[in-house]
Amino acid sequence: MASAARSTRIQRPHGSLQPRFGAQLGRILDHATQVFYERGYAGASMRDLSRATGMSLAGMYHYFGSKERLLYLIQKHTFSTILARARERLAELDDTEKGIRAFIQNHLQYFLEHQQAMKVLSHEDDVLEGEYGREVAGIKREYYRLCVELLERYKKGNGLEFESRTAVLSLFGMMNWIYTWYNPRLDGGADKLAREMGDLFFRGISAGKQNGHK
Amino acid sequence: MASAARSTRIQRPHGSLQPRFGAQLGRILDHATQVFYERGYAGASMRDLSRATGMSLAGMYHYFGSKERLLYLIQKHTFSTILARARERLAELDDTEKGIRAFIQNHLQYFLEHQQAMKVLSHEDDVLEGEYGREVAGIKREYYRLCVELLERYKKGNGLEFESRTAVLSLFGMMNWIYTWYNPRLDGGADKLAREMGDLFFRGISAGKQNGHK
Repeated sequence: MASAARSTRIQRPHGSLQPRFGAQLGRILDHATQVFYERGYAGASMRDLSRATGMSLAGMYHYFGSKERLLYLIQKHTFSTILARARERLAELDDTEKGIRAFIQNHLQYFLEHQQAMKVLSHEDDVLEGEYGREVAGIKREYYRLCVELLERYKKGNGLEFESRTAVLSLFGMMNWIYTWYNPRLDGGADKLAREMGDLFFRGISAGKQNGHK
Repeated sequence: MASAARSTRIQRPHGSLQPRFGAQLGRILDHATQVFYERGYAGASMRDLSRATGMSLAGMYHYFGSKERLLYLIQKHTFSTILARARERLAELDDTEKGIRAFIQNHLQYFLEHQQAMKVLSHEDDVLEGEYGREVAGIKREYYRLCVELLERYKKGNGLEFESRTAVLSLFGMMNWIYTWYNPRLDGGADKLAREMGDLFFRGISAGKQNGHK
């Protein structure tokens, strides 16, 4: 039903699922993202979500059950997609530094293309509980592990010593925080930012030093 | 009325201000922060705030006027304090790298001591409008400029080339994102984190390279 890239499926405790409904899911999740973005998760009601998506309130409850489930679907779709894309990119690359730079570029590109979703995911990071929360946390952990593994390989291959956890989480911080400051006029696109952040990450600000003088 | 360190004053369009009220302000702001943290700004009502602070609803409206004004007071107090502390620290230091490292340590220490406030400030970054929004944005701009100036001085003094804006905002990202992952058992205190992030920032992960081999 769902393609590999769009791995979010509607699994239901609520109502049966028509195949043709799958095609509408992306659009509904986009509208729901917009509502959460504008009103915050806590401030949004199923009625707001119904209005924005154009689906009746009864339909919303029938297919989705709750706004928590919509948030779960948004999170699952987003993190599955960004993970799948990172894996695709990495499969083509042998060089570890290039791999980490591709990871950064993939992350920034997805973020800049989905800025509203990214803000919603950042803010509602800890809302999901129980099975939904565990499933989403599992995908995020896979994504984090992918980056840690790349970094561990780089560290080993180059005889380096640093705290991988702090390094990876600092890198995520650098990248994720852009939703608060990104301005396309000043900051260019994902490629430029990925290059600058990659340089910062790999060589620190001293790397720009000309002729190696100190 | 307010000490230099606690520069948040109640300026009022709403009701007159008793001097003794100043002493209670910090406590009320702490309770309000807690409410915003738990319910989100959009989800919190003046009634919730009244209950949490122990002040009557009429009193809340009389002294604060609105929950927007409470958020403004929280933001103003936080950013003024962190800015004042950074300036104090920097006044004692001549060396620019030490200055930037002190800036990082100050920021992380304040963040770790006020994690709930930091989450509220991150999430409700764009809620304030009009005069409140401009005033808070002005304090944040001063803080940002302080870091940019340090970095520009470091860049000039060492003949470096890098994009200061991306570097400073990446540094803020690294530091601010910790509210999503910080675990005192794994990550230690502000000093340890500041050292690791400072190393990452100044030398990149390759800096740990032993004997300069590549």
